[in-house]
Amino acid sequence: MVQYSQARFDTSFAALSDVTRRGVLEQLGRSDTSISELACKFRMTLTGMKKHVRILEEAGLVATEKVGRVRTCRLGSRQLRQEMAWLAKYQKMWAARFDALDELLEEMT
Amino acid sequence: MVQYSQARFDTSFAALSDVTRRGVLEQLGRSDTSISELACKFRMTLTGMKKHVRILEEAGLVATEKVGRVRTCRLGSRQLRQEMAWLAKYQKMWAARFDALDELLEEMT
Repeated sequence: MVQYSQARFDTSFAALSDVTRRGVLEQLGRSDTSISELACKFRMTLTGMKKHVRILEEAGLVATEKVGRVRTCRLGSRQLRQEMAWLAKYQKMWAARFDALDELLEEMT
Repeated sequence: MVQYSQARFDTSFAALSDVTRRGVLEQLGRSDTSISELACKFRMTLTGMKKHVRILEEAGLVATEKVGRVRTCRLGSRQLRQEMAWLAKYQKMWAARFDALDELLEEMT
């Protein structure tokens, strides 16, 4: 398989491994949202939401900007194309393995 | 976005968030491999590799079978189609957001 930046994959897949963080990305896909609005929408403390946003920010998936007392979040510049490519290759490999198994079983019966 | 099983996504993305675990999946895509061979290939203790395999097993991505004293690993029956679909929708949403931003910038200049 192609060698992508493994550290990048670690952080992006870890960022995606939480239901709230995936929800935040979906919300930001609809509109830019302040951290306090996000906390309210996801029924979470401000501190809890800040932690999630920080993880998304470190993965490059979210960008934030503070204007006055409000910190607004928007989708970051990082896409997830390479992660998609990895999954697509995995699917292909998976299908090939199971096809081979099917053939073996057919030969045996 | 479509509501998939969120708990399932949590475990699969978490399973993918480690370079060794992704490497194990790639290896099992090539051939079934025993845990001790995997430990050797990834220069890891047997205990360390067992932990990784357990996480992959819990996510349904790896299946293991013990014959005598050897535990062999192969790809599990679970595919990652829905995770791919989530990423594809995310990409689309991302592109739409950035297109909208481009248009806004063009209007302003």
